[in-house]
Amino acid sequence: MENSRFIKACRGEPVDKTPVWFMRQAGRYMRVYRDLKEKHTFLEMCKTPELACEVTLQPLDVLGVDAAIIFADILLPLEPMGTGLEFSAGDGPVIPRPVRDRKAVQKLLPVNAEEQLGFVADAIRLVRREINIPLVGFAGAPFTLCSYMVEGGKSREFKTTKLMMYEATDVWELLMDKVCTMLVDYLKMQVAAGAQALQIFDSWVGCLSPSDYEKYVLPYSKRVFDGLKDVGVPVINFSTGTSTMLDLVQKAGGDVLSFDWRIQMDSARTLLGKEQPVQGNLDPVTLFAPIPVIREGVYDILKRAGGRGHIFNLGHGILQHTPVEHVKAVVEMVHEYQHE
Amino acid sequence: MENSRFIKACRGEPVDKTPVWFMRQAGRYMRVYRDLKEKHTFLEMCKTPELACEVTLQPLDVLGVDAAIIFADILLPLEPMGTGLEFSAGDGPVIPRPVRDRKAVQKLLPVNAEEQLGFVADAIRLVRREINIPLVGFAGAPFTLCSYMVEGGKSREFKTTKLMMYEATDVWELLMDKVCTMLVDYLKMQVAAGAQALQIFDSWVGCLSPSDYEKYVLPYSKRVFDGLKDVGVPVINFSTGTSTMLDLVQKAGGDVLSFDWRIQMDSARTLLGKEQPVQGNLDPVTLFAPIPVIREGVYDILKRAGGRGHIFNLGHGILQHTPVEHVKAVVEMVHEYQHE
Repeated sequence: MENSRFIKACRGEPVDKTPVWFMRQAGRYMRVYRDLKEKHTFLEMCKTPELACEVTLQPLDVLGVDAAIIFADILLPLEPMGTGLEFSAGDGPVIPRPVRDRKAVQKLLPVNAEEQLGFVADAIRLVRREINIPLVGFAGAPFTLCSYMVEGGKSREFKTTKLMMYEATDVWELLMDKVCTMLVDYLKMQVAAGAQALQIFDSWVGCLSPSDYEKYVLPYSKRVFDGLKDVGVPVINFSTGTSTMLDLVQKAGGDVLSFDWRIQMDSARTLLGKEQPVQGNLDPVTLFAPIPVIREGVYDILKRAGGRGHIFNLGHGILQHTPVEHVKAVVEMVHEYQHE
Repeated sequence: MENSRFIKACRGEPVDKTPVWFMRQAGRYMRVYRDLKEKHTFLEMCKTPELACEVTLQPLDVLGVDAAIIFADILLPLEPMGTGLEFSAGDGPVIPRPVRDRKAVQKLLPVNAEEQLGFVADAIRLVRREINIPLVGFAGAPFTLCSYMVEGGKSREFKTTKLMMYEATDVWELLMDKVCTMLVDYLKMQVAAGAQALQIFDSWVGCLSPSDYEKYVLPYSKRVFDGLKDVGVPVINFSTGTSTMLDLVQKAGGDVLSFDWRIQMDSARTLLGKEQPVQGNLDPVTLFAPIPVIREGVYDILKRAGGRGHIFNLGHGILQHTPVEHVKAVVEMVHEYQHE
């Protein structure tokens, strides 16, 4: 597995073809997923290793991707921490007991990953028996998880989160500290169960100014990446909306930086240094376009990336209703592409 | 008026104090506005020059800002173009007849600005009699307006808009063309009525990759800025989420570039060149923070901006529930600040 395209690219080593996989490659855009979803709730699917395994495997043969990602949700650790977690149809996640003051932060429970989130480890073990490509484990980054805990769900302005940072900095730091401790344990458990790479999702951190990121987030993200240095698998640092502070995101850590389409791949590589492996960065909406438009976008990224140390992916997850044939076509385009 | 702080800063000339005003400085965060809003709908307020004038004046003495901005909405031109326009409480704008194919674009009506949007000119004339600071007129940028027309309202992914660009490029170009023609007339009318500066709002263009911006948007934005070159007033090019393509946004035109908090002011000025006047870029959420935190943020921007050719503003509009006293305090901080 150490010789797989994906792992070699994560380490910046030369590969025969650029590896490609997709965030949310298992999901509602696939009919087999929708069929299963009619019989089970989202949380049931996450918490039942056999179902999570089945969903993880669904896209692999169809698409021909170079990595699998375990089916789970970044918010799963919130339940054992004590905030509750619900998914109402269409509205996204709801956290019934948001964490907005010192008392609420103090009441958060320590998590025993093996006991309370062991279903993720079990799913990883099941998947590993079935596949011969690397399996990516994952978790939410400290900021993104804490923003859900503070806001109580999705947010547009992240006002409550930012105000906790500004007005009650020590409460924010205590919250981030607790989340970091949980994350390192949870991610180590995934590696012990067989995950051959990890990805940390900081999906919402792009709402911050570079100064706020540096002051209130970077030290905590860094603590997670530092805590994973000895796990022996590559760790991917994913974020969106952070194109103007990628240098700071890089300081936080991670073997691979994954970012969205708001920066061109060659500019990013110049900024980060040629030795920094990168992942990305096609706009997920492009997958709805006609094939020639998709090809133009895919080739442009491959050309600007320059080959070595690049894993092809989207800038964010696959959207609902994306044509499966188009996703498949992208895998073929990436694998066929010849670097000059 | 040519000697006002604001106009001089727009031209990059030295000023005694950094000028400051706020996007959406007239709005729901002010009690006087909410009182008026109980008696009139939003569209009534926009279309009745006496009311629009009253709302425009509301914040001026309270805050002590260096510029006024006419009370209006970027979507007002959509009604005479024939798509309809509704504002339902809390849900944002709704465009009842969205423009999604060639036929719909062809059916769009040419706008006679004086006849159909003359209430904006009348409001400008009324305000000009009452104030001795510059008055800013404004409109939406081609992309942002077209995205509303195509999506039928607010959007998260802008999927329908992007797909029109990719799949029906000539239809997209026809739509952008019609909107450009309307915009240049509409903005010239505002200047003729007495607007002493203009701001073009490209609030949603940050959803695009730099390549898409360059291909599908830049030429049209440029056409609007080029069409306003002889109007004799400074034009501000405002956008959000565009920090990684500010060089392209600059190519589109405008005397002043206004951007959000996702880039530090000194990095932006280095990128754009010291001679490029700039506006911004405090995170609107900061206004909810305690005064010392606000002061730190304000001073940081002023210091990084370096004085000359900088107009202080937020990176986007003032949010609902913002404490008026905090907005007022920012004006004082900016005016008191001494550049080294």
